[in-house]
Amino acid sequence: MSRGFKSLTNVDAAVAEFLSRIRHRPPAVEVPLSEALGRYLAEDVVAELDVPPFDRAAFDGYAVKSADTLGASRNNPVILRLVGSAGPGRPYGGRLNDGEAIEIATGAPLPEGADAVIPYEEVAERGSYIEVYRPVPRFYYVSRRGEDVARGELILRAGARLRPWDLGVLASLGVAKVSIYDVRAAVISTGDELVELGQEAGPGKIINSSRFVIEGMLREMGARPDYLGIVPDEEAAIAEAVSKALRDHDIAVTTGGVSVGGPDHTFSAVAKMAEWSVHGIAVRPGRPNSAAVVGGKPVVMLSGFPVAAVVGFEVFAKPAVLKMVGAKPEPTPKIRGRLTRRITTPINVRTYARVRVYSKGGAIYVEPLAVTGSGILSTLVRGNGVLIVPENREGFDEGDEVEVELLRAVEET
Amino acid sequence: MSRGFKSLTNVDAAVAEFLSRIRHRPPAVEVPLSEALGRYLAEDVVAELDVPPFDRAAFDGYAVKSADTLGASRNNPVILRLVGSAGPGRPYGGRLNDGEAIEIATGAPLPEGADAVIPYEEVAERGSYIEVYRPVPRFYYVSRRGEDVARGELILRAGARLRPWDLGVLASLGVAKVSIYDVRAAVISTGDELVELGQEAGPGKIINSSRFVIEGMLREMGARPDYLGIVPDEEAAIAEAVSKALRDHDIAVTTGGVSVGGPDHTFSAVAKMAEWSVHGIAVRPGRPNSAAVVGGKPVVMLSGFPVAAVVGFEVFAKPAVLKMVGAKPEPTPKIRGRLTRRITTPINVRTYARVRVYSKGGAIYVEPLAVTGSGILSTLVRGNGVLIVPENREGFDEGDEVEVELLRAVEET
Repeated sequence: MSRGFKSLTNVDAAVAEFLSRIRHRPPAVEVPLSEALGRYLAEDVVAELDVPPFDRAAFDGYAVKSADTLGASRNNPVILRLVGSAGPGRPYGGRLNDGEAIEIATGAPLPEGADAVIPYEEVAERGSYIEVYRPVPRFYYVSRRGEDVARGELILRAGARLRPWDLGVLASLGVAKVSIYDVRAAVISTGDELVELGQEAGPGKIINSSRFVIEGMLREMGARPDYLGIVPDEEAAIAEAVSKALRDHDIAVTTGGVSVGGPDHTFSAVAKMAEWSVHGIAVRPGRPNSAAVVGGKPVVMLSGFPVAAVVGFEVFAKPAVLKMVGAKPEPTPKIRGRLTRRITTPINVRTYARVRVYSKGGAIYVEPLAVTGSGILSTLVRGNGVLIVPENREGFDEGDEVEVELLRAVEET
Repeated sequence: MSRGFKSLTNVDAAVAEFLSRIRHRPPAVEVPLSEALGRYLAEDVVAELDVPPFDRAAFDGYAVKSADTLGASRNNPVILRLVGSAGPGRPYGGRLNDGEAIEIATGAPLPEGADAVIPYEEVAERGSYIEVYRPVPRFYYVSRRGEDVARGELILRAGARLRPWDLGVLASLGVAKVSIYDVRAAVISTGDELVELGQEAGPGKIINSSRFVIEGMLREMGARPDYLGIVPDEEAAIAEAVSKALRDHDIAVTTGGVSVGGPDHTFSAVAKMAEWSVHGIAVRPGRPNSAAVVGGKPVVMLSGFPVAAVVGFEVFAKPAVLKMVGAKPEPTPKIRGRLTRRITTPINVRTYARVRVYSKGGAIYVEPLAVTGSGILSTLVRGNGVLIVPENREGFDEGDEVEVELLRAVEET
């Protein structure tokens, strides 16, 4: 039985090396647009249509030939004959001739011959005629064909995570199916103490809760988790489970079996098949979190303790998935506030401190939550933020202004 | 045909009144934990178990009786006899007697009689004995039963949106099913110019892209969209579609038919059946966005123009859903940066300006995107942020520091 890690690898160094060894790309699959939300594009999208597909009115009023309005003035209005109307989806059938105008609603296609729209407010209607009081330029209140997106334009790059408005643009372009990366993530739990939720927890047994946390984090980032169950705490069983999982998954995420000093069967099993591995990192909580690359694919070995596993997921699993799909990390909500109590952390270790962020009298305060161990999952539920203390600091003083990652809304007190 | 809105209602006033009229709560349904991610709890969750369910080792080492270590010192160590071992899920069978110790791994249940764990590093092992060099207090390196969550404790409130770690806490507590709000959102498109994606777009027709944007925004906030198709631009047809939708949906979101000055059949249809409605708001883009309350349920009438619809969704639909489920808005990623160009906006109107946020030489810059109309959906794709200019400002000057809502990562230049 090992007696603890000799030296812990710096987080950034471990992650950089880990990512540089990943050679795998998840498979690209075609899905209907309505199933593409939150997934990562597997190829660039180039517009095959103009959007809008035709010149159209950008305001309600009258479609005219701008040349007809030359010289118009309050004293000497130009008189145009009303010859019809157009609405969205109801184009004017004919061509506009000199001296003619039609009534037009926003979004309606401009008739052939017309090149400007004059809003109601700027003309006077006289039965079947309108009076125009000033000249209007070409394309006045006209949305030009292709002004939103021009045919041939690169509109979204491979690796983009699809948000609702991206789906709107793709639909506008007539794209009914998109090619996205299908990130198949195997989730494997180890630990003789674990029972599944719903099973009877006998003496000394605990419910496997980490799987739900890890599946949830994978789903939130657009990967597809596949829970493979609880594997016994034995090197051979773990080796078989991981190597089988890697056959048809793009990443394997395990929990347990990497404990500091305790049995580390997971790490031993994976390290033997890996081209690269790191055992433990200088992070708190979560120093047992480990990672490896096996056949170009990432294997992330998380602590069996849920909060430590959350930290290890953020450190290793999230960047690994982003790297495989060529995506950038998404921005996270942050807030600055004043620390209500001193927080002391070890030097050369990155510390993820759970905090409660609240507002009082117009100011924002950050209260560190008292914790005794990395098993304290409820701190993530009771708190609403995480304060990351970098390696080069031994903490922060009471009253320091700190920046916190917000997990939930700021509490109002 | 109306000639534009006479006066536009202030956004905050319209929203406050709208929310105050909503009386409906979506139905609560029980789902397995694995389907609860991102949904809103319909009832408080009180712990029915202690977590951890037993006293357990918080470190690898030896379980002892703390009283045995009284008076121990470097010169006068206490000698304890090793009588067994315990690991996670492998409890020590017997009871610890005076003068005894067992080897214990992190997470293993403390045997009866033991009340402390001494890490390997702090003792010397001498074959079947250990030497202890200093007294340890009760519960030294012990995770106490219930220290994470105590039975009877309120752990999550109704209205909480379930994140991955919440699922972990619920699993730890043995909660296999949760009661969540099922927010059934009807999405109805109107507009004679619209065709469905995949259909042939004839002359003057455009693809219905807004539905994908609205469905996506509903999904992202944990509601369940139900797209009911394109309804003709006729008051009777729209009235029937909306009133039918409200029978088995909690909110109806429409697009089109609220155009400024143009045909506003949607608003007319809904206003007639509503106990309250507002026609248009002082927001840009999106002044046609309207809302109503029908039988206590929210009806949000969005502009047919996608970007205006996005703004209207943020203003009306999102707060309406949050109100119905009793949830607080989630924090959004924001960033401060320097404006690269003056931006001019009308007074008494709230403006949502699409911007590109980039970093250069260590500083953050915010570049307003040139736009000519609210139809310009691609600005949300090309840009990565939204600058909200409040009603009491006529814009910002070049060089002003502004705060922007970030939709995607900051661009590196």
